[in-house]
Amino acid sequence: MRFKIITNVLGLIVEVVSLFMLLPLGWAVLDKSPDVRPIFISMMIGVTLGAILLLIGGRLSREEMRPKEALVAVGLSWVLASAIGALPFWLSGAVPSFADAFFESVSGFTTTGATVLANIEANSRGILFWRSLTHWLGGMGIIVLGLAVLPFLGVGGRQLFRAEVPGPVPEKLTPRIHQTALLLWGVYVLLTALETLLLYLGGLSFFEALTHTFGTVATGGFSTLNGSVGQYNSVYVDVVITIFMFIAGANFALHYKLMKKDFTAWWRDEEFRFYLYIVLGSIATISFVLLKNQIYSSLAETARYVSFQVVSILTTTGFVTADFEQWPAYAQLLLLILMLIGGCAGSTGGGMKVVRVMVLLKHAGIELKKLIHPRAHYSMRLNKEVVEKDVILSITAFFSLYMIVFVVAFLSLSLMGLDLISSVTAVTATLGNVGPGLGVVGPMDNYSTLEAPVKWILSFCMLFGRLELYPMMALFLPDSWKK
Amino acid sequence: MRFKIITNVLGLIVEVVSLFMLLPLGWAVLDKSPDVRPIFISMMIGVTLGAILLLIGGRLSREEMRPKEALVAVGLSWVLASAIGALPFWLSGAVPSFADAFFESVSGFTTTGATVLANIEANSRGILFWRSLTHWLGGMGIIVLGLAVLPFLGVGGRQLFRAEVPGPVPEKLTPRIHQTALLLWGVYVLLTALETLLLYLGGLSFFEALTHTFGTVATGGFSTLNGSVGQYNSVYVDVVITIFMFIAGANFALHYKLMKKDFTAWWRDEEFRFYLYIVLGSIATISFVLLKNQIYSSLAETARYVSFQVVSILTTTGFVTADFEQWPAYAQLLLLILMLIGGCAGSTGGGMKVVRVMVLLKHAGIELKKLIHPRAHYSMRLNKEVVEKDVILSITAFFSLYMIVFVVAFLSLSLMGLDLISSVTAVTATLGNVGPGLGVVGPMDNYSTLEAPVKWILSFCMLFGRLELYPMMALFLPDSWKK
Repeated sequence: MRFKIITNVLGLIVEVVSLFMLLPLGWAVLDKSPDVRPIFISMMIGVTLGAILLLIGGRLSREEMRPKEALVAVGLSWVLASAIGALPFWLSGAVPSFADAFFESVSGFTTTGATVLANIEANSRGILFWRSLTHWLGGMGIIVLGLAVLPFLGVGGRQLFRAEVPGPVPEKLTPRIHQTALLLWGVYVLLTALETLLLYLGGLSFFEALTHTFGTVATGGFSTLNGSVGQYNSVYVDVVITIFMFIAGANFALHYKLMKKDFTAWWRDEEFRFYLYIVLGSIATISFVLLKNQIYSSLAETARYVSFQVVSILTTTGFVTADFEQWPAYAQLLLLILMLIGGCAGSTGGGMKVVRVMVLLKHAGIELKKLIHPRAHYSMRLNKEVVEKDVILSITAFFSLYMIVFVVAFLSLSLMGLDLISSVTAVTATLGNVGPGLGVVGPMDNYSTLEAPVKWILSFCMLFGRLELYPMMALFLPDSWKK
Repeated sequence: MRFKIITNVLGLIVEVVSLFMLLPLGWAVLDKSPDVRPIFISMMIGVTLGAILLLIGGRLSREEMRPKEALVAVGLSWVLASAIGALPFWLSGAVPSFADAFFESVSGFTTTGATVLANIEANSRGILFWRSLTHWLGGMGIIVLGLAVLPFLGVGGRQLFRAEVPGPVPEKLTPRIHQTALLLWGVYVLLTALETLLLYLGGLSFFEALTHTFGTVATGGFSTLNGSVGQYNSVYVDVVITIFMFIAGANFALHYKLMKKDFTAWWRDEEFRFYLYIVLGSIATISFVLLKNQIYSSLAETARYVSFQVVSILTTTGFVTADFEQWPAYAQLLLLILMLIGGCAGSTGGGMKVVRVMVLLKHAGIELKKLIHPRAHYSMRLNKEVVEKDVILSITAFFSLYMIVFVVAFLSLSLMGLDLISSVTAVTATLGNVGPGLGVVGPMDNYSTLEAPVKWILSFCMLFGRLELYPMMALFLPDSWKK
């Protein structure tokens, strides 16, 4: 473990995050808000801390990072970015306790969207802008992480998706990653601009169009309204956001190909097709159940709310236009399953990722076939390429680890006195980076009523889920810290 | 697929099951009960059907069964035995609808113990004896299946446990299995005799001692009392049953070794140690939570009820001495996890089996280590033997399939209108062959209130869980039926 390399990475991340506070500072200055001061102080603390870290780190090494160094660097940078990001909330008094401010900031950077703000609209635009911006920055970080860093480290079978990265394939953690990152960020910025424009044309203010776009393209889910997107009660807004959530939940490498005029890129991808089937299948069956139970008066209304909620939950965005806790049990259970599945690999979505679920399903199918024909030889294919046994083993291990974290976390919450449904769904919603669960953390509630220890556990659930477990686990393994 | 071989197996099973109806017939005759007639008719139907099947099958072939033939034979024989076993309930009017009678019979043979009898004590001893005897017969069948047939077929990594079988190791599905089966049945009969004696000495009638023993050694859970074992309100009975449930949930091959004076056999076995740790850890933490919440007045009382319930649930017996639905959420959630884990391989317990969970945990741990040290080579060991990658792949596939069946089943139940908690826990309790769940199928309720389609689904959950998925899945795969 060479700590200087890690210190360098952390310094850089802290500088970037802190400098982005200039944007909310701008809103605060524009509004002559009293939050100018706390945001400025937060930025100064961040910039200073970043500078100190960079000084300690010394000159950036030309050497490659070792896997465990990269894991620890990724884990620590998300924790540190969240701590710095919590300062504006805490210092402004918008969120009085640091545990809560950290939760809110983690929820932002991990693009979860679970909030401790009981009255969101009571906050200044500066604070709310920073809150939504953490989503956008987190989403930007996740794209590089998911398409370049984690595949290189082989996290949970991610090596499988390495070939999907456009531009130069990153074979090593060298500056060549930068080029890939820039291409994908181009796609991300373009989508952001497009959605902001469409929402603005739909009648939202520039501020609201921008913040809700941040929440969408990062599959975050923070809204600036107490009633989330549902408060607009606009079919146009619902449709625009549904479409962009769907896009943000798919692989950004495919979007890049599409922009390069490879018009069948989406459809040729097996994961994308499966993702689409899950969306359509869920919308169809939930709509059927809701119509049967006469939850909404018409098919059109049903389709509108169900489409929005299914896409919002599967992509792990977490925007809400309907109180799905009032829907029949089938709808609630299916939405919980969708939370666990999550978005596609290389998207800003959380969860276990669609492609991993596909590999698990295919693997189960092959073992079943083998039982009937023990002498036949089967190999798994994904996008026509053979999936090696070691990759399957990695993905099954990831699945087990995900379940272990899931169970340990909800047992811990219940040990702290939370009820059965709230314990399980709060973990599902935070580990999957979704936001709303059921029970006390339902779609019409928020996370403000929970005790501080519960919030700490959920903050770590968000980090574990967002970074695909391993970088966070590396922080807790003594082996990682050996010289 | 050679149907004649399968017909032979089915004929034999049906004959055995039908002839065992002589025992409840005896009780009915003794009591001069009107149930003599329906039980006798049921037996005659079974004997005749068995004879027809044996006649169709012709002379028993000396050829080996192929894997898919064995799978189909196992699946069909459990379904057919349950159908024949349902006749006494149905014809006597104890359970008026066939769907219900089939459910009760499946619940018996799969050693689940979920009942549709709202007033158990209203039934004759003949009927109740048959009900408990189905447990005992099912448990007998499972021991052979789990220690000889499934390992041979490689079901879900079962080949791993093949070496554990005492006596001649069955390498092929030949008559040599008989010898192994007889040794293990000897252990089973001995345990049955011992527990019956102890319960009889504890003041139970011979009838009640015997029926509760059947429920214990088969990890079944049918009681002849409306209030299950709790109705005795006897510390002695609780302790005896707790100990025998614990034994029944451990590998019978180890018990055989112990009887052969290999006194450290239990402790040397890694699965047994882990099983013991799960039991002790669960008892300790649940007791702590119950004491903190002052559910019982003393530590002794808490320990008594918690020990009984933890062992009853983990071994998937399902006897009840406390309404655990009134316990705090932590206790309920942990009990649900225990239902999924289940007993040891080679026991009469259900669930995924302790050893599979161990392999999943070890596998996850190895992948984690690999990430930190990518160049190091790790291999998994269980009882000091290396576990091959293909075995790990089988077990991870089994885990995925188990989760798929779990999710599909509870979504189906919720689609039929069952509430969230009841849907999930009814499937957990039947797929794991436990019995009581939460909600409408809670420890103080029964399965009588459910609609017929729900009962059919749960009947199949019990069969899927009991036979470790594959034999039942084979029945639904078109490939199995090809000539």
